[in-house]
Amino acid sequence: MSTAELNELMNTLGRQARTAARAMARASAAAKNTALRALAATLRAQTDALLQANALDVARAREAGLSDPMVDRLKLTPKVIETCAQGCEQLAAMPDLIGEIIGLQQQPSGIRVGQMRVPIGVFGMIYESRPNVTIEAASLSIKSGNACILRGGSEAIDSNRALAQLVQQALEQAGLPREAVQLVPTTDREAVGRLIAMPEYVDVIIPRGGKGLIERISREAKVPVIKHLDGNCHTYVDDPCDLEMAVRVTDNAKTQKYSPCNATESLLVARGVAAAFLPRIGAVFAAKGVEMRCCPEAKALLAGVPGAVVKDATEQDWYEEYLAPIISVKVVAGLDEAIDWINRYGSHHTDAILTTDHRHAQRFLREVDSSSVMVNASTRFADGFEYGLGAEIGISTDKFHARGPVGVAGLTSLKYVVLGEGEVRG
Amino acid sequence: MSTAELNELMNTLGRQARTAARAMARASAAAKNTALRALAATLRAQTDALLQANALDVARAREAGLSDPMVDRLKLTPKVIETCAQGCEQLAAMPDLIGEIIGLQQQPSGIRVGQMRVPIGVFGMIYESRPNVTIEAASLSIKSGNACILRGGSEAIDSNRALAQLVQQALEQAGLPREAVQLVPTTDREAVGRLIAMPEYVDVIIPRGGKGLIERISREAKVPVIKHLDGNCHTYVDDPCDLEMAVRVTDNAKTQKYSPCNATESLLVARGVAAAFLPRIGAVFAAKGVEMRCCPEAKALLAGVPGAVVKDATEQDWYEEYLAPIISVKVVAGLDEAIDWINRYGSHHTDAILTTDHRHAQRFLREVDSSSVMVNASTRFADGFEYGLGAEIGISTDKFHARGPVGVAGLTSLKYVVLGEGEVRG
Repeated sequence: MSTAELNELMNTLGRQARTAARAMARASAAAKNTALRALAATLRAQTDALLQANALDVARAREAGLSDPMVDRLKLTPKVIETCAQGCEQLAAMPDLIGEIIGLQQQPSGIRVGQMRVPIGVFGMIYESRPNVTIEAASLSIKSGNACILRGGSEAIDSNRALAQLVQQALEQAGLPREAVQLVPTTDREAVGRLIAMPEYVDVIIPRGGKGLIERISREAKVPVIKHLDGNCHTYVDDPCDLEMAVRVTDNAKTQKYSPCNATESLLVARGVAAAFLPRIGAVFAAKGVEMRCCPEAKALLAGVPGAVVKDATEQDWYEEYLAPIISVKVVAGLDEAIDWINRYGSHHTDAILTTDHRHAQRFLREVDSSSVMVNASTRFADGFEYGLGAEIGISTDKFHARGPVGVAGLTSLKYVVLGEGEVRG
Repeated sequence: MSTAELNELMNTLGRQARTAARAMARASAAAKNTALRALAATLRAQTDALLQANALDVARAREAGLSDPMVDRLKLTPKVIETCAQGCEQLAAMPDLIGEIIGLQQQPSGIRVGQMRVPIGVFGMIYESRPNVTIEAASLSIKSGNACILRGGSEAIDSNRALAQLVQQALEQAGLPREAVQLVPTTDREAVGRLIAMPEYVDVIIPRGGKGLIERISREAKVPVIKHLDGNCHTYVDDPCDLEMAVRVTDNAKTQKYSPCNATESLLVARGVAAAFLPRIGAVFAAKGVEMRCCPEAKALLAGVPGAVVKDATEQDWYEEYLAPIISVKVVAGLDEAIDWINRYGSHHTDAILTTDHRHAQRFLREVDSSSVMVNASTRFADGFEYGLGAEIGISTDKFHARGPVGVAGLTSLKYVVLGEGEVRG
């Protein structure tokens, strides 16, 4: 495709999205929920056809020599499709946020002023591999009354085309414009560059993928980006603390699953409980083959644990998001050092304190500058579903606009509404 | 100042702001309010000294041949200073938003999840002429628990230095760090370029000034910008409508003051009431010397009004923010055309419908995509004080993050807090 043709294509998608966004902003809650339920039904009815389309992608990936984990992420299964369908139904069952008016109060002039929640307009979503993201993005877009332009990975193009077609059919069934959800039909790499630079058609970009991709998009985008950079999450074991609970929660935060961004990558332990706590969690990590990269004090306390893989941490380790059975371990003087440490080395994603001290818990909540701060819970809970958002389109590590898991509300904005009876300004 | 010296200076300001921001985020409501009241007191006590410093700026401006309106904007008077002092006291009297937790709800896993309001961190403010903006920005920064770096216009440097010194004294009196509010001490133009490109120290930039300045800053900034572009505000006179009220409100929206961004620049009139309404408002505008740039239909209806200055509108007129006794006038078929017109030609700032039809009012509120939408009120009300925000640092015409008048809440973000009792993820 020539650059001129590509620009023409992207402009057409953009124009259609903008028009569809106006219709979606006006759409009734009933119509949006009808579309979501129709989508769930058609996903189930068309499971076989989706698996066939997906098989083309998988075969191409194998031929191209993609690694097994990459191929796994690409695979649609009946279970994955059923989970997508249930996600659509859950969203349909949730209350509609669009049009709610908050804080309406009368002012001394007589006017009543409040804020109305409205869709942002059009978002562009750029993602890799997993084709179920197509359904997650489409369903959140429909529920929030936005339009979206989806750009999936070229390796998943057959699956994504098949899924997007079902989405458009469901929209039509509900009397909504097909163009409310559009898939970029080409795998041309230039399409991304154009998608992130059309402020006249696209209001915000949501990239999902590696840090490199997200940094590049943030740098080049001409519209705001909801960024999800790395998750260097901390669990801090405080003094005083329920050590039994601390072992259970720390174990879960690190080992329940290694690859998610909300897994704990760094363990901080207050000096007062380090001698009692570290050997116990060290034994758990040793049994599960988790390598520990330690400060000298932690290393000394862990050295005697049978089977433990204990190494010296480098400065770089304190910044690292391993996404693997590795954890950095540091003994700190107490709460103040823990807070300073997390704000310095963390990535402002998710950090937890395990404590029995109320004042420490309150200070940690206020002073740790992360999108999720937790008391006595596993960092693995940082997730749109676990937070009751119904679904998430990503996790924002930014402070601007949406922060933390981004659900329907993160795809809306609040505009001021003023209700008067002919008031004028004096 | 050499580039190296300038970078050194800006880095020092940035580092100090970041450290001060941590202390401000922890500061009690009482300490912040003490600082605001101390600032009000010292502004009153030091009025003479401030007027002397200001006289230096004014003399320099006159020598440099600045226009009278420019010199006027530069002038501090006892009344302006008293207004600043009252603004600080009003902010001190308002409830503290920092630390409030909203929506705390238990999830099926047992964890309780809510959102806590916290300061954004450090904002950079770039503004021109009016030195009272220094106090508005400083007081909002203190109340919201942020730190800020202020870069005023070089023409106001003596006034701004004197004001910033009082702010820092007030902070110290309250036991808060002086560096929570810092003025860029040099008038070097390169300082702006550096201020907008230090994401490690500055979280958001708020420019106040002409459209050109704001566009340039938005283009070059490496951090989010709270943008206030133009205010091409519309008043739409609907059919049906209370014409008496419509004349009063339209008159106020256009003529109460010509220069503010929330003054109405374009008047839309439904065809059904045009013949009755236009000659009446035309007579008001004629009496006040407001030039009317019209579509052919409006021109025909206004041509007979004695003394009216009626011209043909060009396509460009429909986009124009005049900030002057000029208004564009267009007859539309009705509500649908009015909404489409405003969304197409407007600047998403503030738009009003004057109507007696409930359904029309509701549709206008939902479908007009502007930061403020109004029913039966003058667009001149779009203002932080009138909206009960206590103060405003600007008006955002963006949809992302803050939208409309930006007060304390617009300088905060919501982070997730999770309260558990040792829950782990299954």
